[in-house]
Amino acid sequence: MISERMKALVQNNSVIRAMFEEGRVMAKKFGQENVYDFSIGNPNFPPPPAIKQAFLDILNNEDELYVHGYMSNAGYESVRDAVAQSLNRRFGTSFTMKNIVMTVGAAGGLNVALKTLLNPGDEVIVMPPYFVDYGNYIRSYDGVLVTAPTRAGDFQPDPEALRRAITPKTKALFVNSPNNPTGVIYSEESIRAMADVLLEKQREYGTSIYIISDEPYRDLAYDGAEVPYITKFYPNTIVCYSWSKSLSLPGERIGYLVIPSEADDSQLIFDAAGIATRVQGFINAPSIMQLVVARCLEEKANIAAYDINRRLLYEGLSRLGYEAVMPQGAFYMWVKAPGGDDKVFSNKAKEHRLLIVPGSSFGYPGYVRIAYCVAKETIERSMPAFEALARELGLIS
Amino acid sequence: MISERMKALVQNNSVIRAMFEEGRVMAKKFGQENVYDFSIGNPNFPPPPAIKQAFLDILNNEDELYVHGYMSNAGYESVRDAVAQSLNRRFGTSFTMKNIVMTVGAAGGLNVALKTLLNPGDEVIVMPPYFVDYGNYIRSYDGVLVTAPTRAGDFQPDPEALRRAITPKTKALFVNSPNNPTGVIYSEESIRAMADVLLEKQREYGTSIYIISDEPYRDLAYDGAEVPYITKFYPNTIVCYSWSKSLSLPGERIGYLVIPSEADDSQLIFDAAGIATRVQGFINAPSIMQLVVARCLEEKANIAAYDINRRLLYEGLSRLGYEAVMPQGAFYMWVKAPGGDDKVFSNKAKEHRLLIVPGSSFGYPGYVRIAYCVAKETIERSMPAFEALARELGLIS
Repeated sequence: MISERMKALVQNNSVIRAMFEEGRVMAKKFGQENVYDFSIGNPNFPPPPAIKQAFLDILNNEDELYVHGYMSNAGYESVRDAVAQSLNRRFGTSFTMKNIVMTVGAAGGLNVALKTLLNPGDEVIVMPPYFVDYGNYIRSYDGVLVTAPTRAGDFQPDPEALRRAITPKTKALFVNSPNNPTGVIYSEESIRAMADVLLEKQREYGTSIYIISDEPYRDLAYDGAEVPYITKFYPNTIVCYSWSKSLSLPGERIGYLVIPSEADDSQLIFDAAGIATRVQGFINAPSIMQLVVARCLEEKANIAAYDINRRLLYEGLSRLGYEAVMPQGAFYMWVKAPGGDDKVFSNKAKEHRLLIVPGSSFGYPGYVRIAYCVAKETIERSMPAFEALARELGLIS
Repeated sequence: MISERMKALVQNNSVIRAMFEEGRVMAKKFGQENVYDFSIGNPNFPPPPAIKQAFLDILNNEDELYVHGYMSNAGYESVRDAVAQSLNRRFGTSFTMKNIVMTVGAAGGLNVALKTLLNPGDEVIVMPPYFVDYGNYIRSYDGVLVTAPTRAGDFQPDPEALRRAITPKTKALFVNSPNNPTGVIYSEESIRAMADVLLEKQREYGTSIYIISDEPYRDLAYDGAEVPYITKFYPNTIVCYSWSKSLSLPGERIGYLVIPSEADDSQLIFDAAGIATRVQGFINAPSIMQLVVARCLEEKANIAAYDINRRLLYEGLSRLGYEAVMPQGAFYMWVKAPGGDDKVFSNKAKEHRLLIVPGSSFGYPGYVRIAYCVAKETIERSMPAFEALARELGLIS
């Protein structure tokens, strides 16, 4: 009796989420310490102490009606102002609260952006490998997903593939850097090249093509790498941020959209995004969380801890003969599936209680994603399992 | 460049939300105390002290990774179990956590339910007057809104109107009791009559028709009135609850769905609802709020305070010659527009700085809605304005 679309989604549920659930079942069976769950981007490091302090300050000092009450659907003005100022300080932008809409995480923000922009049949380009739910989001608004694969080897955007993918029906391009699942940061050169293609095609077709920049990993960049702020290179950019990963708050669902004044129809998009937030049932981003993050805008992600994991895993896997891409950001490692079949590899790994997601779930077979936002000890303890797997696969003897 | 649907929504934005924003502007201009804002259901009484205590207990004693982390999209199992047990104690039901999906408020829950159930072209019946965003929610899933007006006079559901409205394409019926905007509680007799019609039509057409019961006001009933638990009268019922109104937490976006085991395709609906929660971008209900409300399940709404407002407003308006419906629940008063035109009346009221919403916004012209979830003093201070308005309209001389 349910909708046909949902029936298909139930039958073909997210491999990542299914694996996450399976991991919990396996942990009960074999013991938590004997299951190496690298399936999901659930940070294993606690939020910075400032988060708890902000909660306590707000609960003890602010008016409860203000803290837990309705505000404009776009969010508290004071919070939006603080977010804009913080972005301006860090990235040399010039946003005001009128460019910011608080959202229920980045997933909420992406849905608001798509609801705001898409007419049925509009095309949205993604650059495989890509986060699998992008497709579900796009289809929710009767959009059409079009792919323009990244370059083999370095997984940077491919301007020529992008040019070929754009049609008069192209409404948006999803960009996700640092990237889930590859860990690659799109270089300034890549972004300039993308922007050139988009500007050329906008002129050619007389259309507006928006970059929807999904940035939950912006603040997770290693070795001091810069993550270019895309609005500075391409005005028709809508940024979707989330504190889920940077401050370890994935359950709280708090993020924001940036709609720059330079974007085509900026004011209309802003007004529509506020209304979309309401009519999609979000109403507003959770109120106390808005106030909490506004007090923690200068807090840093625990990049040092993730960096230890990154090196440990990369060195461990490389030593065992696996071919991994060294991540520049985020907390995912993208590893070639020995033998070439990512599903076969992922299933074999599961026999060793290693939960890793096949690249097919990211529209990119032949690789797997290993989420290393886990305890360091999990990586250490998993190495004998990776070793046994490597031996079974003939990578080492 | 935005979507055509959103363009229409921007042009024809929610009168309630527009009035809420206008009230804030007027408050700045004339002073908060000189504007009588009865526009929105934003509770003016703080949450019970147990809410703050629950926050503090959780922040001080629970593992932060658990408090702020991902869980199953349907919500923490312990929270869902606690919700089910609480419902069973209060209403004699027999739910388990497998019947409960935690949601981003009732608006989130309604959207998840509709996404789960509707195929394009499916019909959803509402019983005017009704909350205006129901129409926007239904259209988001390409559903068709069909109306079956309540009975003139007592605003109870009209079984004959319902029978006429049902077709083979009917997928759902929205029920909202205590009702926004009328304050009426649907009687057990009304619910039995509705259930009879639905059962008869299900048999006739060989279909499943679901009641989607929107229950944010369930715990706001005056004079000890009972609000019948609809799953006990009609198995194909999905309940959408929210703590927004009962515990004064509207900004926090926390509620749940009940999907009874007796409903047709219950397990499939449950599975799909969890996935819909994810793909619509909610991911899960805000994590710390799930844990907070689970510790406050026995807390009561501040019904005594609302009751004082209810009597004060009803007596005040009646004395001035207005025809109001005495609310049985919720915190809205439904008042006949003197002269018959609700928009004219609402505009005249605005000249007296009285913000009240025309019934047209609820698909029911000729009445207005006065949200009395305000400070008692606001009602007292508004009376001279209502009096001047009554005089202007010739209700009194």
